[in-house]
Amino acid sequence: MKAKQKEVDDWIKLHKAGYFKPLEIMTHITEEVGELARELNHLYGQKKKKDSEDIKELADEISDVMFILICLANSHGIDLDESFSRVMDKCYGRDKDRYKKK
Amino acid sequence: MKAKQKEVDDWIKLHKAGYFKPLEIMTHITEEVGELARELNHLYGQKKKKDSEDIKELADEISDVMFILICLANSHGIDLDESFSRVMDKCYGRDKDRYKKK
Amino acid sequence: MKAKQKEVDDWIKLHKAGYFKPLEIMTHITEEVGELARELNHLYGQKKKKDSEDIKELADEISDVMFILICLANSHGIDLDESFSRVMDKCYGRDKDRYKKK
Amino acid sequence: MKAKQKEVDDWIKLHKAGYFKPLEIMTHITEEVGELARELNHLYGQKKKKDSEDIKELADEISDVMFILICLANSHGIDLDESFSRVMDKCYGRDKDRYKKK
Repeated sequence: MKAKQKEVDDWIKLHKAGYFKPLEIMTHITEEVGELARELNHLYGQKKKKDSEDIKELADEISDVMFILICLANSHGIDLDESFSRVMDKCYGRDKDRYKKK
Repeated sequence: MKAKQKEVDDWIKLHKAGYFKPLEIMTHITEEVGELARELNHLYGQKKKKDSEDIKELADEISDVMFILICLANSHGIDLDESFSRVMDKCYGRDKDRYKKK
Repeated sequence: MKAKQKEVDDWIKLHKAGYFKPLEIMTHITEEVGELARELNHLYGQKKKKDSEDIKELADEISDVMFILICLANSHGIDLDESFSRVMDKCYGRDKDRYKKK
Repeated sequence: MKAKQKEVDDWIKLHKAGYFKPLEIMTHITEEVGELARELNHLYGQKKKKDSEDIKELADEISDVMFILICLANSHGIDLDESFSRVMDKCYGRDKDRYKKK
């Protein structure tokens, strides 16, 4: 993630006056998650056909959410590799009861 | 991301019968994004105090969303490094009009 | 709300085979909330101008979310007048500590 | 809705200094929609049992979202009865192609 966080930061520095304010970023996250939901409704709602182009669009929507999450992390000086590891560790413990091991 | 996608996949294989169905994952994403919103409301809503513990919790909430996004990507065979690069490339073009270069 | 719930139900009965499944409705809610977020970003994000047309669009986005929430309620036989009253009652108690009375 | 909008407005006037700012309200909406998603995951995710208590909780979560949507509408002077009618009218046209009449 470090490389991606740097890439986003470089882009922001080149193109914008700085990161949005936190609640603006949050509202963008909600907007992008909405677009992801639309894509999944398109794929799995009433009609069932999906082709490779749809999967590519799904991938792009997921990445759009990633991008804006990284903006939120960067604007708070968060190291996502570190916190992702922490969450994975927590998961092993936390989810012991929720999911049965195979 | 490749390492993280693998890590999540290993965890899923060890602990669960497989990935949730897409709309279940989507509902989990909405749930986790809601928790992220709560944390931001806590940080930036009525009261202003924030300490390093709050930032750590914010980092964890962002990583929770990342985790479930990776689940969605993995369950569709999506390579997030590839699609993230594609989105960054698109960004350079797409946002030319939206944001002024500094 | 009773009239609105009936109106939506009539419309669904006339136009569709029935209500979507719950997680499909949830995904639609996320999608519509995303459109609401976009409208608020448009109104309050970087630029500040807002005219009466924008407020009308905001009103429509709120109503779109209402519509799909009513679908979810109807498909579970929920009486929204009753539950809204219950929530308002709970609020008076629940929020006593969260918000100071003027 | 007029009665409900008035009820919320009275409550806000009695208990708070006024409505939150729009992006704060939006973040609250995302938070409440996340709780609604959690309830639906609880009802329809891995396990299937649902009892009348679950439906009541679902009803409360829907009403929580309604409450905060009404806050957003009130803070913009929006008449939800009017905009809901407009949306229903639009629906009849808009969805003609999307859904087949029975």
